[in-house]
Amino acid sequence: MQVKNSQKLLQRYMDVRGYSHKLVENLEIEDFLLQAATHVSPTKWHLAHTTWFFEKFILEAYIDSYEHYNEVFLYLFNSYYKRIGNPHPQSERGLISRPTVNETMAYRKHVDTHMKELLSQDPDQLDPKLLEVLEIGLQHEQQHQELILMDLLYNFSHNPVPPAFLPESSEKMGEAPALTFHTFEEGMTEVGHSGDGFAFDNEEPRHRTFLHAFKLANRPVTNGEFMAFIEDGGYERAELWLSDGFQTVQDEGWKHPLYWMRQDTSWMMFTLGGTVDIDPDAPVCHVSFYEADAYARWAGRRLPTESEWEHALANEVIEGNFMEDMVLAPTSLYSGKMFEKAYGDVWEWTQSPYTAYPRSKPLEGALGEYNAKFMSNQLVLRGGSCVTPLSHIRPTYRNFFYPQMRWQFSGFRLADDV
Amino acid sequence: MQVKNSQKLLQRYMDVRGYSHKLVENLEIEDFLLQAATHVSPTKWHLAHTTWFFEKFILEAYIDSYEHYNEVFLYLFNSYYKRIGNPHPQSERGLISRPTVNETMAYRKHVDTHMKELLSQDPDQLDPKLLEVLEIGLQHEQQHQELILMDLLYNFSHNPVPPAFLPESSEKMGEAPALTFHTFEEGMTEVGHSGDGFAFDNEEPRHRTFLHAFKLANRPVTNGEFMAFIEDGGYERAELWLSDGFQTVQDEGWKHPLYWMRQDTSWMMFTLGGTVDIDPDAPVCHVSFYEADAYARWAGRRLPTESEWEHALANEVIEGNFMEDMVLAPTSLYSGKMFEKAYGDVWEWTQSPYTAYPRSKPLEGALGEYNAKFMSNQLVLRGGSCVTPLSHIRPTYRNFFYPQMRWQFSGFRLADDV
Amino acid sequence: MQVKNSQKLLQRYMDVRGYSHKLVENLEIEDFLLQAATHVSPTKWHLAHTTWFFEKFILEAYIDSYEHYNEVFLYLFNSYYKRIGNPHPQSERGLISRPTVNETMAYRKHVDTHMKELLSQDPDQLDPKLLEVLEIGLQHEQQHQELILMDLLYNFSHNPVPPAFLPESSEKMGEAPALTFHTFEEGMTEVGHSGDGFAFDNEEPRHRTFLHAFKLANRPVTNGEFMAFIEDGGYERAELWLSDGFQTVQDEGWKHPLYWMRQDTSWMMFTLGGTVDIDPDAPVCHVSFYEADAYARWAGRRLPTESEWEHALANEVIEGNFMEDMVLAPTSLYSGKMFEKAYGDVWEWTQSPYTAYPRSKPLEGALGEYNAKFMSNQLVLRGGSCVTPLSHIRPTYRNFFYPQMRWQFSGFRLADDV
Amino acid sequence: MQVKNSQKLLQRYMDVRGYSHKLVENLEIEDFLLQAATHVSPTKWHLAHTTWFFEKFILEAYIDSYEHYNEVFLYLFNSYYKRIGNPHPQSERGLISRPTVNETMAYRKHVDTHMKELLSQDPDQLDPKLLEVLEIGLQHEQQHQELILMDLLYNFSHNPVPPAFLPESSEKMGEAPALTFHTFEEGMTEVGHSGDGFAFDNEEPRHRTFLHAFKLANRPVTNGEFMAFIEDGGYERAELWLSDGFQTVQDEGWKHPLYWMRQDTSWMMFTLGGTVDIDPDAPVCHVSFYEADAYARWAGRRLPTESEWEHALANEVIEGNFMEDMVLAPTSLYSGKMFEKAYGDVWEWTQSPYTAYPRSKPLEGALGEYNAKFMSNQLVLRGGSCVTPLSHIRPTYRNFFYPQMRWQFSGFRLADDV
Repeated sequence: MQVKNSQKLLQRYMDVRGYSHKLVENLEIEDFLLQAATHVSPTKWHLAHTTWFFEKFILEAYIDSYEHYNEVFLYLFNSYYKRIGNPHPQSERGLISRPTVNETMAYRKHVDTHMKELLSQDPDQLDPKLLEVLEIGLQHEQQHQELILMDLLYNFSHNPVPPAFLPESSEKMGEAPALTFHTFEEGMTEVGHSGDGFAFDNEEPRHRTFLHAFKLANRPVTNGEFMAFIEDGGYERAELWLSDGFQTVQDEGWKHPLYWMRQDTSWMMFTLGGTVDIDPDAPVCHVSFYEADAYARWAGRRLPTESEWEHALANEVIEGNFMEDMVLAPTSLYSGKMFEKAYGDVWEWTQSPYTAYPRSKPLEGALGEYNAKFMSNQLVLRGGSCVTPLSHIRPTYRNFFYPQMRWQFSGFRLADDV
Repeated sequence: MQVKNSQKLLQRYMDVRGYSHKLVENLEIEDFLLQAATHVSPTKWHLAHTTWFFEKFILEAYIDSYEHYNEVFLYLFNSYYKRIGNPHPQSERGLISRPTVNETMAYRKHVDTHMKELLSQDPDQLDPKLLEVLEIGLQHEQQHQELILMDLLYNFSHNPVPPAFLPESSEKMGEAPALTFHTFEEGMTEVGHSGDGFAFDNEEPRHRTFLHAFKLANRPVTNGEFMAFIEDGGYERAELWLSDGFQTVQDEGWKHPLYWMRQDTSWMMFTLGGTVDIDPDAPVCHVSFYEADAYARWAGRRLPTESEWEHALANEVIEGNFMEDMVLAPTSLYSGKMFEKAYGDVWEWTQSPYTAYPRSKPLEGALGEYNAKFMSNQLVLRGGSCVTPLSHIRPTYRNFFYPQMRWQFSGFRLADDV
Repeated sequence: MQVKNSQKLLQRYMDVRGYSHKLVENLEIEDFLLQAATHVSPTKWHLAHTTWFFEKFILEAYIDSYEHYNEVFLYLFNSYYKRIGNPHPQSERGLISRPTVNETMAYRKHVDTHMKELLSQDPDQLDPKLLEVLEIGLQHEQQHQELILMDLLYNFSHNPVPPAFLPESSEKMGEAPALTFHTFEEGMTEVGHSGDGFAFDNEEPRHRTFLHAFKLANRPVTNGEFMAFIEDGGYERAELWLSDGFQTVQDEGWKHPLYWMRQDTSWMMFTLGGTVDIDPDAPVCHVSFYEADAYARWAGRRLPTESEWEHALANEVIEGNFMEDMVLAPTSLYSGKMFEKAYGDVWEWTQSPYTAYPRSKPLEGALGEYNAKFMSNQLVLRGGSCVTPLSHIRPTYRNFFYPQMRWQFSGFRLADDV
Repeated sequence: MQVKNSQKLLQRYMDVRGYSHKLVENLEIEDFLLQAATHVSPTKWHLAHTTWFFEKFILEAYIDSYEHYNEVFLYLFNSYYKRIGNPHPQSERGLISRPTVNETMAYRKHVDTHMKELLSQDPDQLDPKLLEVLEIGLQHEQQHQELILMDLLYNFSHNPVPPAFLPESSEKMGEAPALTFHTFEEGMTEVGHSGDGFAFDNEEPRHRTFLHAFKLANRPVTNGEFMAFIEDGGYERAELWLSDGFQTVQDEGWKHPLYWMRQDTSWMMFTLGGTVDIDPDAPVCHVSFYEADAYARWAGRRLPTESEWEHALANEVIEGNFMEDMVLAPTSLYSGKMFEKAYGDVWEWTQSPYTAYPRSKPLEGALGEYNAKFMSNQLVLRGGSCVTPLSHIRPTYRNFFYPQMRWQFSGFRLADDV
């Protein structure tokens, strides 16, 4: 991992931090507390935890006389870094009424003040290790911006009268192009990150791998296509599913993607812009790996591996529907390019379990817990989504979720053998 | 049940309603949302639900053109009246961020305005049925005032740094008198409510019952006495416990009353006034029926029946440590009377399962669900506590909780055969 | 509790013990192992545990040089006497493959041999305490004979092709007489056991109690009457149920009594004689307290208290359909007496929680755990059933089960106020 | 997949089937019923299910007039082939007392008789598809022989006095050679099955893959080495574990491998030969993937991928400690070869999630459910164990278990980067 050497460090810090405030500016105080399931966190917690990260790993480490804003916060806002101490149970984050939202904002301000002071120095004078951790901290805050939006959607959906985060807007933007597949020859390739830009430790090292010939779809599977799977009895046909997947379907009573609801003969879904008609031309979203895998089997195709995905799409321009657009839902706007929506709109499930790259080395110390310890039972997703900050995504970026999870903005793109 | 005919109806309504506001005036908005377990409710919910009660059972029923403040609230703030519709799941009350606290207060104001208008009429012109329901609504709000305090204590205890509801105050007030027993002869007696004052349907009818001779302790068991039970291995000795009780002890890992914590060699407890030293002379509180029963067996005594309790203590003056004193914890202040603390301080577990009195008739309609449908698996407690409004308690009042519950302010008084 | 002084002690011991063998003589070895839920036990376990009782409380206590058949059995076949040691988990009784059934029978023989030797002495020479425990042991074995039958029915019902314990026999025996009620005047009465015959400690002491006037049905509620409750939507109407009861209905998906199944338009049920048509004139069986209580509310009546039941029916002759008849299901055979089926056929739920009688004293030592420690959360049933040994039942006999339990042979009889 | 063309088909069928009987010949009937957890099955069920396989997929398919032994068995003894119908719940297999063991043996005989008749024909006349399914059926029965032994060990361990399957025998056989690593160069290689012999669909097709240089240990990790990990606090140090792994350690209270118990200062373990001293020179066994992974991290190494394992060890001779030796526990007998115990003794965890090989195609029809539908959340193990039939194992054989599972005979071998 290398660090971006920039005169604009401070500006970047303020921009990223400021975006977190922008996201929450229209919330009611009550909204900041919601935690409707263990795996989602209250907005207030996200705002405090990202601040804790800078306090713990930078201010505490690099400022001799630094005084913590509140010693208790060190415990309260640790997420899962066990080397730092036993974290507060994740399921009880919604029960922390104090510090209040206002105090949390004061905590952010306190840390920002000290960070600004620190970053006002000549970057060349700063410890390169500090710059490295700073970059991780900013990437970390961006990840939590995405989590704030994911979790708010989930939490709002548990309000009996769910509030809309955005003004309602479900205008149809375009039509999905016909589904086609582009072929790639077999051969050695390289995947993973190298070079100067930032990447997480799980993206490294760049390494050789052999790919068999394959083909990859021009665009993600759409809502309309997924409706056909449902109508064809997709959720009732065991032979289409992995065994663990079908068990989940039965245990959870799944009949459609998360947030979908049937209104008589048509489909609606709950979004950050409220409850809207489902646009059949937009990518399907909020599906689990199991649903993506079952759809692919139904369609006579398969999901791509993460190496195939990266080999095929690493050179696409990173543009599209990202958090900064503040649409915050996948759309039916298409570009006409050979590959549509490689980045943005929806994270794309791959068939690749999340494991370590050959010869990879986790970071040392507590930050080594950032990624490596999650390398079991999860699968890799690629490409970023409509709630991912644009500046956060890279072709080599590896997101990962358990196969049954659906609250992330996840869709998928089909692949096949040649 | 009869209704108090009074020119002061309106004043009484405003007083009770106003007390609810007084209780919450120092809370942060965030505190209003907390729900740390299914059986406790957010403060905001209590404020809305008590308001719903007046809207549903009075305004909707007695004002022709009444327009609901918000139709959705009819669903949201129903507790358990199934004849009115399927209530929102109790476990998800903490996930309702909207209406906000401010909107909830506006809802209260809306209903109060219409109630005031209604009650400004000559009471003699008002439907007697309305007056009856009004009285139930006021008693109901008082019950929820107690619940607000019970639930806040429970919820605050789940804050890693628990806030204090009151300024800390743990001054020792006195010494417990020696434990003595007063004897009552065998014979027929009468228990239950009759006459003009208000009572719930479960306190009626007043009826004859036969009591064997018994004796009853002069005061509740104290913290100091309960410590001796703990030191004597009380929580580890199966032979002292009911079978279901000991199972609960093992499943829950109980080693002391709720909110107690050992600090080296001394005992502390969490109260609405923060974490304080335990006063050995104050009544033990936050014990389950199982713990009360086990203590009694250990002490070679038993708990009284509810008939014994009422027969012995119905004529005591109702005075003592109640909600209005705003101490909100049992104290070691003793009066020197023959029976100490018959009312106030702690609810006293009896050995009597909560069942219907002979020939009792539940109220008709939805309000019949108020009490009768809970007549299984619970036990009766008597006497009121330091979080019960003084004007709410009566000698015939029957409170009831499941035997494993501890978040109510419950203690106990010993009895014995003669 | 007093002990039956009889020259026929040995004969009685051999009779009771022999009946246990008779009950299981047609079982396959595989059947002896079944445990389909924690609350039922394998037949083999019952046979061993009842033997353990004599070994533990008599042979070990009264024969100096007694050598245990196998020290491990002392642990394995203790049920719940915690003063004797921590019992093997009830849920794992079905996992004990060794001792085998044959070894278990050898264990029974070993203990019987020593018991015979002991009981061959002149009873007048025997320690009266021994005779008392012997009687408890025989009553205990009779209770387990009933349990063997209850548990086999439950376990067999989990075989995908359930075996029949008896040759199939579902002949209709008669018609239920019309439902009538007999009235009893208010006044003092006495209930509970006194005198020479055996009774458990929970039936004593005989004591005075006051009854209000009441009336009691001439016979238990029939299957046909219960079908009408079902057809009237009984299981869907919350207002008919206790709150805990309706919760159970929903959690468990109850739509009819245990072992019932609908075949097109008619009803069948699984019995110890296989799957048979339901006889509408026989008493309804395998209902929980909640169902009995809901039915009574639907019928505009109530269940009797146990004092009412005993007051009204204590003088009925104890005769009817008991275990020894080997019908092992309630029947539609009626006698024409004023009160039908007071004893036998079905245990009758009362509305009385199972609590201690005034001034009752549990037995000393481990046998004190026999009854008293279960005095919470359960309700009393009276009268014995078609799987109860005739010689085991008494007018004062108090059986008890949790309100949600249904695998016992339980029905109910209606009562009402006057 | 290709089929072994052999005149000895019938003999092979009889040999494999006969081995199942040999394994159970010393069991008591009661032992056949045990099911101590959902994931283990009763011995009787294994004997019936393997028979069902031949009846369902061969006799029913290839004999026109074939009459099933018992139609109900088609339902009862289906394991998980949903295309055939909804199987009986796995957790209730232990509740099937009928058919008895004797009837199950009669069922086996019935099917064997018809199979013998069928296989007495000239193999060249037999449908090649039949031969293919026959081979799968035999491989399937061998897998269940291993399961019978795994499950018996697990079930016996739940007997409070666990019976020994074998005469006790814990003689120490040798000493483990020093741990060394052998290096392999980077480059393309081929893995997976091809050619004439039988293989499951999940081992095909043979395909190219690129390996980075790596080194592999000469032998599996031993009990003695694993004790050092325990003594060093291995089970308490979160930093050594995958996140899901440490959660499992805490939830399950793991402190050592399954079946280990500490006796004062030494270690014992329960085996099919009873409870014996642990031989520090034998391979550690009954560890989960999480424990193997944590040990490797503690040792500064890693687990091999399945491609590395196969590349390195595919050419080792398949010999060692297998089921036929009837030792049924890993031993400390070493051969002196460069790689010790590549086959037999313990299955070796790899770090590879169990996924489909490139271009693999599951079998068509119900047999396609045999392997492919389990390709999520599990990891690959290689090499066979002391309870695997020798004739069942191949270099390309892919066994798979969930990472938390420990009742299989699983150990591991270390690898490392170069």
